[in-house]
Amino acid sequence: MNLALPGKPVDYINTGVWSTKAIKEARIQGKDVRVIATSEDKDFSYIPVDDTVDEDTSYLHFTSNNTIMGTQWRQYPDGKGVPLICDMSSDFMSHPIDVTPFGLIYAGAQKNIGPSGLAMVIIRDDMLQRVPDNLPAMLKYTTFCEHNSLINTPPPFIIYVIDLVLTWHEETVGGLEAMERLNREKASLIYDAIDNNEIYHGIAEVNSRSLMNITFCLPDTKTEERFLAEAQKNGLIGLKGHRSIGGCRASIYNAVTIDSVKSLVAFMKEFEKTRV
Amino acid sequence: MNLALPGKPVDYINTGVWSTKAIKEARIQGKDVRVIATSEDKDFSYIPVDDTVDEDTSYLHFTSNNTIMGTQWRQYPDGKGVPLICDMSSDFMSHPIDVTPFGLIYAGAQKNIGPSGLAMVIIRDDMLQRVPDNLPAMLKYTTFCEHNSLINTPPPFIIYVIDLVLTWHEETVGGLEAMERLNREKASLIYDAIDNNEIYHGIAEVNSRSLMNITFCLPDTKTEERFLAEAQKNGLIGLKGHRSIGGCRASIYNAVTIDSVKSLVAFMKEFEKTRV
Repeated sequence: MNLALPGKPVDYINTGVWSTKAIKEARIQGKDVRVIATSEDKDFSYIPVDDTVDEDTSYLHFTSNNTIMGTQWRQYPDGKGVPLICDMSSDFMSHPIDVTPFGLIYAGAQKNIGPSGLAMVIIRDDMLQRVPDNLPAMLKYTTFCEHNSLINTPPPFIIYVIDLVLTWHEETVGGLEAMERLNREKASLIYDAIDNNEIYHGIAEVNSRSLMNITFCLPDTKTEERFLAEAQKNGLIGLKGHRSIGGCRASIYNAVTIDSVKSLVAFMKEFEKTRV
Repeated sequence: MNLALPGKPVDYINTGVWSTKAIKEARIQGKDVRVIATSEDKDFSYIPVDDTVDEDTSYLHFTSNNTIMGTQWRQYPDGKGVPLICDMSSDFMSHPIDVTPFGLIYAGAQKNIGPSGLAMVIIRDDMLQRVPDNLPAMLKYTTFCEHNSLINTPPPFIIYVIDLVLTWHEETVGGLEAMERLNREKASLIYDAIDNNEIYHGIAEVNSRSLMNITFCLPDTKTEERFLAEAQKNGLIGLKGHRSIGGCRASIYNAVTIDSVKSLVAFMKEFEKTRV
């Protein structure tokens, strides 16, 4: 609604349920939507390598991290000057990014920066010129820019908690580089447990693995159910995979401590022993 | 976007800044907007009596309470079968209403039911049939009905506080009838102080006065400033009128206690004495 150029297509990369929804919405807008890359052929278990960007397009939209399948872009697509539009809801603020190629970044607060009920948007100044005049005021990025994000009554409690989280992020953790180191360390511990082990199998392809959502399965549903039940007894909750793919999922967003991750890994090793 | 009927106009009553915004947005949608009544001629200081409803229209939209001028509908317009659409943001849950004539009621949470960051919508079943298929999913009332208001991640903190407020409303206050009695009593105390007094002058016309936002002015700006400063010293804050009209405003939403109102009234009487 805001960023398509008149007479030009809009390009999308499809890596899962969130991308699929974005594509559907663009089509509802009557746009000439081109899906220039997709990993649908293997149930979205990988990030497609894309080098087919057509420079004669409005933008290139993708999802940086896919919570359900547990995949994540390690190196962003090369837009060749085409503005990148990215849904970063599930890995925003988890590692440093170079914002230069991005025309717009959007992210729900609820994964890494605070309680649900608010979305963060970073828009590049030149993109504001694309916004049509005849959109509803509340749906125009220009409205929010012109009013310092205060066009309507904001949700102060959520903003207050985000302020606390960002202070912790900067002062206690030490900023984005430190956060990335921590997230890599956390993810490595679990992926190592999966890879050096007979009963756990990673769902996402190795070079597309997410540092935020680690998906794996066990040999059969019965073992999986026992794993989840015993994990819960050990205080390890929320490990059930998304209902659309089953299996298990460890979501280790910024707020999850390395100690929690170590507890999970210790349990995984213990569970393997008791299996035989 | 949701409720206009193809080829039929949409009707609005203009009673202030919120109605004016709603009318502007309907025009942006390219609708045939008819403002069938307005109080703009007297700076929105009254509620226009309307009996001109044309039955060949999509709906009749109005704002139940106008926070800036301090006016409120005491008896809702007779839609003659035309569905009423009402922005009840600033008096929702302050008194019982008969929902029968309403096609849709909407209200931001932040006045009477909880923290800001959420809107309540009551929609009549038959209105859902009007919703066009080709709207964005997040802008269709049908989407929210089909998904039990859980299409996206909800804001649990805000919902939790609303639950506490509604429990208080029902169990401690005693429900909508009791709340209305309390609100009438609170408003009467302040309006009596305004009316039986030389230096305070009500801004809204008497029969359009709001039970939520009581607007009044003093003889001159200097006295007004002194009133506000001395009120603040007495712990009475937030009494300055909206910048667009000046004067003073006592907003006495559901959460304001009768004791707070009595403190204000005592101060008003005291201030008058010290004036001479």
